[in-house]
Amino acid sequence: MTAGDGVRGLFAPASIAMVGATDKSGWSLNTFANLRRHGFGGPVYLVNPRTEVVHGERAYRSLSDLPEPVDLVYVMVPTPAVLDVLREGARLGIRHYVVLTAGFGETGPEGRKREEELTAFCRDHDLTVLGPNGNGFINAANATTPYGLPIPPPLLRGSVGVVLQSGALASSVLAFSQVRGIGLSLLTSMGNEAVVSVTDVIDHLVDDPATSVIALFLESIRRPREFARVARRALAAGKPIVALKIGRSGLASRTAQAHTGALVGDDAVIDAAFRQLGIVRVRSLEDLIITAGLLAAYGPLPGPRLGVVTPSGGASEIIADRAEDEGLELPPFADRTVARLTEIMPDFGSAANPLDVTGYVVVDRTLLSRALRIVAEDPGIDVVLLLSDLPRIEPPDPEPVFRLYENSTRLIAEAPRPVVIVGNVLTDVGDFARTIQERTGYPHVVGGIEHGMAAIGAAVRWSRDRESAGRTRAGSTAPAPVVRGPATGVWAEHRAAALLAENGVPVVPAELAADEEAAVAAAERFGYPVVLKAAAEGLGHKTDIGGVRLGLNSPGDVRRAHREIRAAVGSAGLGTLVQPQRAGGIELLVGVVRDAEWGLVLAVGLGGVWVEVLKDSALRILPVDAAEVRRALGELRGAKLLEGARGTEPADLDALATVIARVGELAEGLGDDLESLEINPLLVDGARIEALDALITWRT
Amino acid sequence: MTAGDGVRGLFAPASIAMVGATDKSGWSLNTFANLRRHGFGGPVYLVNPRTEVVHGERAYRSLSDLPEPVDLVYVMVPTPAVLDVLREGARLGIRHYVVLTAGFGETGPEGRKREEELTAFCRDHDLTVLGPNGNGFINAANATTPYGLPIPPPLLRGSVGVVLQSGALASSVLAFSQVRGIGLSLLTSMGNEAVVSVTDVIDHLVDDPATSVIALFLESIRRPREFARVARRALAAGKPIVALKIGRSGLASRTAQAHTGALVGDDAVIDAAFRQLGIVRVRSLEDLIITAGLLAAYGPLPGPRLGVVTPSGGASEIIADRAEDEGLELPPFADRTVARLTEIMPDFGSAANPLDVTGYVVVDRTLLSRALRIVAEDPGIDVVLLLSDLPRIEPPDPEPVFRLYENSTRLIAEAPRPVVIVGNVLTDVGDFARTIQERTGYPHVVGGIEHGMAAIGAAVRWSRDRESAGRTRAGSTAPAPVVRGPATGVWAEHRAAALLAENGVPVVPAELAADEEAAVAAAERFGYPVVLKAAAEGLGHKTDIGGVRLGLNSPGDVRRAHREIRAAVGSAGLGTLVQPQRAGGIELLVGVVRDAEWGLVLAVGLGGVWVEVLKDSALRILPVDAAEVRRALGELRGAKLLEGARGTEPADLDALATVIARVGELAEGLGDDLESLEINPLLVDGARIEALDALITWRT
Repeated sequence: MTAGDGVRGLFAPASIAMVGATDKSGWSLNTFANLRRHGFGGPVYLVNPRTEVVHGERAYRSLSDLPEPVDLVYVMVPTPAVLDVLREGARLGIRHYVVLTAGFGETGPEGRKREEELTAFCRDHDLTVLGPNGNGFINAANATTPYGLPIPPPLLRGSVGVVLQSGALASSVLAFSQVRGIGLSLLTSMGNEAVVSVTDVIDHLVDDPATSVIALFLESIRRPREFARVARRALAAGKPIVALKIGRSGLASRTAQAHTGALVGDDAVIDAAFRQLGIVRVRSLEDLIITAGLLAAYGPLPGPRLGVVTPSGGASEIIADRAEDEGLELPPFADRTVARLTEIMPDFGSAANPLDVTGYVVVDRTLLSRALRIVAEDPGIDVVLLLSDLPRIEPPDPEPVFRLYENSTRLIAEAPRPVVIVGNVLTDVGDFARTIQERTGYPHVVGGIEHGMAAIGAAVRWSRDRESAGRTRAGSTAPAPVVRGPATGVWAEHRAAALLAENGVPVVPAELAADEEAAVAAAERFGYPVVLKAAAEGLGHKTDIGGVRLGLNSPGDVRRAHREIRAAVGSAGLGTLVQPQRAGGIELLVGVVRDAEWGLVLAVGLGGVWVEVLKDSALRILPVDAAEVRRALGELRGAKLLEGARGTEPADLDALATVIARVGELAEGLGDDLESLEINPLLVDGARIEALDALITWRT
Repeated sequence: MTAGDGVRGLFAPASIAMVGATDKSGWSLNTFANLRRHGFGGPVYLVNPRTEVVHGERAYRSLSDLPEPVDLVYVMVPTPAVLDVLREGARLGIRHYVVLTAGFGETGPEGRKREEELTAFCRDHDLTVLGPNGNGFINAANATTPYGLPIPPPLLRGSVGVVLQSGALASSVLAFSQVRGIGLSLLTSMGNEAVVSVTDVIDHLVDDPATSVIALFLESIRRPREFARVARRALAAGKPIVALKIGRSGLASRTAQAHTGALVGDDAVIDAAFRQLGIVRVRSLEDLIITAGLLAAYGPLPGPRLGVVTPSGGASEIIADRAEDEGLELPPFADRTVARLTEIMPDFGSAANPLDVTGYVVVDRTLLSRALRIVAEDPGIDVVLLLSDLPRIEPPDPEPVFRLYENSTRLIAEAPRPVVIVGNVLTDVGDFARTIQERTGYPHVVGGIEHGMAAIGAAVRWSRDRESAGRTRAGSTAPAPVVRGPATGVWAEHRAAALLAENGVPVVPAELAADEEAAVAAAERFGYPVVLKAAAEGLGHKTDIGGVRLGLNSPGDVRRAHREIRAAVGSAGLGTLVQPQRAGGIELLVGVVRDAEWGLVLAVGLGGVWVEVLKDSALRILPVDAAEVRRALGELRGAKLLEGARGTEPADLDALATVIARVGELAEGLGDDLESLEINPLLVDGARIEALDALITWRT
């Protein structure tokens, strides 16, 4: 299938047939009413073999009886008849379908078989099908609405493209967009994605000139690598993707070795992937649409420094609280700004950021606009936040209101910085408000402080990160790693450490000692105190069997430890590993595990309680470069320790990030053989960075 | 002032005079229109000495010219004339006033003086004044609306009482309540609280039969102890208080000694106080009104186990995610419930909790109600959550819709468990929806999954905690603590420890050694290893000056350490303190500091990175009992360590809580002399609990 052409055609048919149309079906009634009511310009043919008239119009017996081969067929026949409709359509050269009918993959093994048949048929005949088990789409840009649930008027055109892995929620999203005054380009309810996938539709929206922002409701991401590819395309095209991905509460399905597995939950991987791809992840349907609407109306925002203009002290303080949550700044105004504001403010006001021009706006309705003009010229801010609700109730004489908003619109247009307008609380944009906006060109009003600040925070972060996010990092260019011996089973410390050391990862010095004399000789070379560890094949948890001895200060200590370890390990032992004992520094956990969907995932965290009790870790999908690793380290709650809190020497973060990036590169180089690789701990002491212990698990 | 009577009268006047009424003022126009439009039954007199007619009605020259002494005067005269109006009113025996006029305490020193005069005059003449610098109130219960900003109709009566320390936000709260279909009993915009305070109004609402829930917007809590008293009264009366308290982002103003000060930020104290008082703290205006509306409509909720009924898989999963956030449970349905649901569900559905009855509701509109009936009978759930939006658009024939909702209303009323109805997204409850509710009695619909789940979570927690919260714990009944010596300055370890030990707090054994021989003798008695610490007056940070020596294993070690400490401390030294060295266990920080507003505050946390880097601590206003301390310990992120994570022995939490409660009792007993008391660390090793070090700072 050439998805691009097929999908573009799917959403822009010149004629539509509804097969299975009947007065008895709510879906049929809705779809027909939607096409008629919202301005679809082409013919709509109704097909039903058992009746002459449907929805008050002539019904045709079959697709073959239509006067022309239509561009799109909307299929509502019973499940067993769906494939017959596609067969007939394919014979007639019809390429695009929406299948509303359910009873496919969502119902069990038999339905899955039926869906596989459908998919294969469409592939073989180059058919583009949305569904099955989906309500269709709403193309507001070209007024094409083959969609099975009611679309209450008005259908607002705009530049937000919405893709939903849900039927019922599409109605909620549609209603919410309408009452927020947020216009859509396209809304699709995906159904089972038997042929056209979420990824295909995003791909289309990236190229769609009517769309500037993409909003997603996702239950699952079926082909992560494809998804990542189109997400990067969107980023390159400057079109933000905002996503509500559910299933946060799902437990991690992964049970990898050691600690890393517990850190790499499915949802944490999604979080990491979205961050790397520059996708704005939101938590609610409200945030999904409000954030997309903000980005569609105001585009990227130049920076985090807000100048806030409000008529309310209480609201100013709510905004200050929310700004802190979102990492936004409210810098003090410049002296000149303060002086100019003081001139226009009532005596009892204070010219500070956030600005409360006071209830005096009841007396002087231009006060807010005049303050806005001054604040917008402050050199220390990036964005003006104007707190102002549109009126809900039309007064007997609306003309003065229109003039007020015309004046504000002009001031906002002339402002040297973007002015984002936010309402106090999340209430509908009513008819009178919409009339004001249509008459005066007054900009989009973001829905309430609570969700508005979340949206501004997200927009600022997206704007900041769009350069660094989403780069298709080249895979490793290093030569293939040296692997000595068959890559199977579990490689415990001595073999794992040797592999790391040989491939450019610094490892604490160590010597394998076959007997007591060799152990003492090694200890003398390193200097006391030393550590002795069991060296044995397939030994995962050395500590549990007494295979690690710390703080050995003399030849006698070393001899005794060697004997005891040999006795504990038994015949599996190869001897002991002698290492100098390190004191001080900070221990990290660095692990790579394989995610079934996204591939190799890197986890970094601080050792001890940080990962074991707090699960404090940062994840990245591989590949990553050192700059990305530094960002990951910065996300740790314990990051302050690396910077030298509690009297520790600050870690050389650049060197640390380089070592960890090298671990990632090595893991990639090990390729399909690798199941997981964990360094625990990686010791950082200023600029000295050394793996003290490691464990590699191979897939076979 | 007898606040209760005065405030009750303030809100229920039989006649009102507006002094300073003028056609030139928006406030005057609004107030007069509000009184006329919303059904105030008594006379409204307009007073203006400079004109005959105001707002199209006769104007009187002064209060004295009125045909009767009114019950309430609404004052809008210029600032310097306000007190004259009160004087005239007082002479006429008028007791109740709203002062809209600004220019008082909010403007600076001169205004503060003017406000103090006003306060004193009112106290002397027993006048009840709301304001100054406030818009007045809206008593929806008795249709009395002396309020200076527009009140768009309809004014919905209900049982939520709203108190706001903000003028402008009152309009937002009013608008939001209206569009959510949430009726109010009383709304007051407090102004400067020169006479009537937030606390007075809450006190009134606790007794007000029209009010069942109290919603607060707070900028500051002026008299915390009074506030706590009325909050406890509300709890005892079964009336939840929901509060949006701003200033979260404010920095802690406290700089107490040692670590405790950094943990006890102003906002953290508010959080602790609210939790102890059973006040539901919310983060947004939306949550404030939605949570209050839920509690007003549905009352307390019996437990956290939700049975969820929806027509949407996507929405079900959003609900599951949000339930986890809120600590709510979605238990599996009982077998019988599954069997009954399977009978009515379409083949492709799945009878699990959360339940998605599927899009088949488009075909069978009774499916949701029938599923609801079955789920409501499941024995394993406490509350049913029905996801259902009211329709926005009136169809040409609304009668079938009314019948559908009549049927649902009956089913919900008959359900053996509470059924909370939640909409998908936060959109206004429109006219048709309100008509449905008025016609059929269909219950309140909570505004959207995002805010609705927050509200359900809050309601469940309030219902659970109402028994334990808010108890007026008796202050210490223990005899006054023994304090040896004048309570001044800083008491470092040896004196602080002695005070603790003498007053029932377990302390590690210690002996004060004046010379080397005494130190060795003490060490021999304790057994090695021991610790030596400097014992000196006013020595806060021993470690910094080399005043602590650990791990002393022999008489030689002890002698050397004693000499070195004496040398380091110099003439201030009294000798050294010898203690047995403890190994293992978990270190806690237990501190008490004085908050200027709330009094003594207890902070508990785990030692090391937990408090220093993570600021992981739990606060309580004193007094507390051991049960409350246990709850506080359970709030720590590191609580798992106390329960035995990472191989440590589980702490005896009951014993630990008892010791910490004893510290709190001791701090209370020390009374006004105490500035702060800190035990750092308190070592817990199973059931052995000992203070290893302590510091007391006296106020003088």
